[in-house]
Amino acid sequence: LSVVTLTTDFGLRDGYVGTMKGVILSIAPQTQIVDISHDIALGKIAQAAYVLASAAPFFPDGTVHVVVVDPGVGSSRRALALRTAGAYYVGPDNGVLSYPLAGYRLPGVGGPASELTHSAGSLAPGVEAVQLDRPQYRLPSVSNTFHGRDIFAPAAAHLAAGVPFVALGTPVIDPATIPLPWPQKLLDGSIRGAVLHRDKFGNLITDIPVLWLETRQTWLFHVGERLIDDLSVSYDDGRSGSLIAVAGSQGLLEIAVSGGNAADTLCVDVGEPVSATPRF
Amino acid sequence: LSVVTLTTDFGLRDGYVGTMKGVILSIAPQTQIVDISHDIALGKIAQAAYVLASAAPFFPDGTVHVVVVDPGVGSSRRALALRTAGAYYVGPDNGVLSYPLAGYRLPGVGGPASELTHSAGSLAPGVEAVQLDRPQYRLPSVSNTFHGRDIFAPAAAHLAAGVPFVALGTPVIDPATIPLPWPQKLLDGSIRGAVLHRDKFGNLITDIPVLWLETRQTWLFHVGERLIDDLSVSYDDGRSGSLIAVAGSQGLLEIAVSGGNAADTLCVDVGEPVSATPRF
Amino acid sequence: LSVVTLTTDFGLRDGYVGTMKGVILSIAPQTQIVDISHDIALGKIAQAAYVLASAAPFFPDGTVHVVVVDPGVGSSRRALALRTAGAYYVGPDNGVLSYPLAGYRLPGVGGPASELTHSAGSLAPGVEAVQLDRPQYRLPSVSNTFHGRDIFAPAAAHLAAGVPFVALGTPVIDPATIPLPWPQKLLDGSIRGAVLHRDKFGNLITDIPVLWLETRQTWLFHVGERLIDDLSVSYDDGRSGSLIAVAGSQGLLEIAVSGGNAADTLCVDVGEPVSATPRF
Repeated sequence: LSVVTLTTDFGLRDGYVGTMKGVILSIAPQTQIVDISHDIALGKIAQAAYVLASAAPFFPDGTVHVVVVDPGVGSSRRALALRTAGAYYVGPDNGVLSYPLAGYRLPGVGGPASELTHSAGSLAPGVEAVQLDRPQYRLPSVSNTFHGRDIFAPAAAHLAAGVPFVALGTPVIDPATIPLPWPQKLLDGSIRGAVLHRDKFGNLITDIPVLWLETRQTWLFHVGERLIDDLSVSYDDGRSGSLIAVAGSQGLLEIAVSGGNAADTLCVDVGEPVSATPRF
Repeated sequence: LSVVTLTTDFGLRDGYVGTMKGVILSIAPQTQIVDISHDIALGKIAQAAYVLASAAPFFPDGTVHVVVVDPGVGSSRRALALRTAGAYYVGPDNGVLSYPLAGYRLPGVGGPASELTHSAGSLAPGVEAVQLDRPQYRLPSVSNTFHGRDIFAPAAAHLAAGVPFVALGTPVIDPATIPLPWPQKLLDGSIRGAVLHRDKFGNLITDIPVLWLETRQTWLFHVGERLIDDLSVSYDDGRSGSLIAVAGSQGLLEIAVSGGNAADTLCVDVGEPVSATPRF
Repeated sequence: LSVVTLTTDFGLRDGYVGTMKGVILSIAPQTQIVDISHDIALGKIAQAAYVLASAAPFFPDGTVHVVVVDPGVGSSRRALALRTAGAYYVGPDNGVLSYPLAGYRLPGVGGPASELTHSAGSLAPGVEAVQLDRPQYRLPSVSNTFHGRDIFAPAAAHLAAGVPFVALGTPVIDPATIPLPWPQKLLDGSIRGAVLHRDKFGNLITDIPVLWLETRQTWLFHVGERLIDDLSVSYDDGRSGSLIAVAGSQGLLEIAVSGGNAADTLCVDVGEPVSATPRF
């Protein structure tokens, strides 16, 4: 069975996701379809890009990841498919595929431990992109409002069914990208980063790699107007209700409240600056 | 793998849907189970009927669609299975199966472009219905509160496993139905319809077929107390925040707000009259 | 296809559940993965335990049930797998596996009709438990914050792929447990119980077995300050809005409001005492 994953902002109420699954199974009956998320905030491209980047490395080689967070559906934005070393990606050309386009891996799944660099608008080595412009790999009739059903699901299903990647469309070399996480080490030994994702538990996942903190120093963390004293071992480590910093499952520093909700406690959200300062 | 879809108002919290899947896999292990929606508003038969009608045509031939929105569970209402040209349907006899019973297809999936007609309480040509009254195709013990688990899931699984449709129960010729969409062309060239569905994005899907609008005229649309000037090409077409009318993915006219929520903006919901008037 | 079920408090927004599915399919590609619930209230071990106990008996023999409601993730609490007569279970050693550990079945699925007894902290006959302490059955790198991905999903997948249960880890004989439902028959013929679960519809599922009520008596039920006169046949039985008692699908007494929400109407929740008194 080939695996196709779906990440959208469609929610599960209207049957849009189910419709995409019907399209996929009509083209490629032997497919395992897995939901990654359908509760991406409406049109939040960066959130979808992060959630997919955090989950995708855990899927089998050759998985096809479909992401449809697509406020520009029906406009002139292109529809893309990518091929990377381990997976395929299908989605709109609006930056939602920036992580695989840039070959950017999160630290917990093999990403770099040193300074991260990336250049927008170009393809990382080993990544290929095509525009989904072949009618034979779309539904016969393409609407202007539901490309998830009419273009993206069919493309993913044809890939899963064995259609060669290069047959899907015309090569693209200038895909749209969004800024990716870019934490920085300063000369004084401190680290500047930001909140990258707020999860359901209210944990604040930052873009600071935990490996950067695995030194002999202990650290002081700043987030909003609050100070946190060194890393805790787990969410459960510390008095209930205390603000803590932990090594998260993506290899990224997380700000949490033991038994509570850090985002609500601190009233901060994605983008909030976070810093780590060595303690002498 | 046979495909069984599920549409309910059960939500995903209590494990009711998972239980139905366990029942299906116990009877028919080689089944692909696909969720269409479990967030139908409580007991909203018309919403479930529409959502299923919009998704079902995209599934492989022979798919078994189970729908359990069933406020009368345990009462004397019958449990039904239907066979149509392309699919099976399983659900309560409360009107939730009205679209397939009437052979009513939405315009975007092969429905009629001209006036729509249908008669309630009878079977369309080529549609058969049976009452699920055979104990051997139910769970051994049938509760009065969870027929999704005890009657509908087993019936669907037996169909998926190859039990002949006619073996499932006694033929039914007078199923319950609800009124289906019935937009009208008036003598002055205008069209009268209504809002059929409000989706998660706040888009208002009307019952007016887009094909009716594909004439040389341009149109004025009325919804609530607001006026919309002609069709837009996509959600993205127009200033952000402007009210627009677009050709929706079901072949139906949709009222939307570019980058916003039309239902909230207009304070209208399902049933609201919508009209289209030719502009001279 | 082996079946693996998932029950968590992760929600579906952040991709955590999708990540677990990727891990499972990477290890055991031929697996059917079924969601039981991902909307368990945060850290509510008793709720997860009940929901799983209500759904698990309806799955095929040999199903692997994974439950991750795990406020103590990364602390010293153990990770467990269980083998019972019909299924495997994988989850944290925090009581969430108490039903299968105690061999406790709900009445509607073969549980005892007479007084229920159980002893905490020990294994029921025929139940085996191991601690998931073998590195080869975990992901190569184990975080302190996401054992669902790093420990539980891999263990379940290895079981599904045929790894012998006893190979997964060191036997455990003193698992943690939570109090299980314990309704009581009093000498005067009355029954004392409590609300065990509040479902999405606002139905209050109590721990009182319906079989205890199947006598020649009629009954008076007390819940909160309200009185209910005898059992109704179904949710639909009685005036809309009236408070009723019905035989629920788990073989347990349920308190409901016909066409309404009993939990909201009564302002009661899990733990509320419920009693049944014979009427003479």
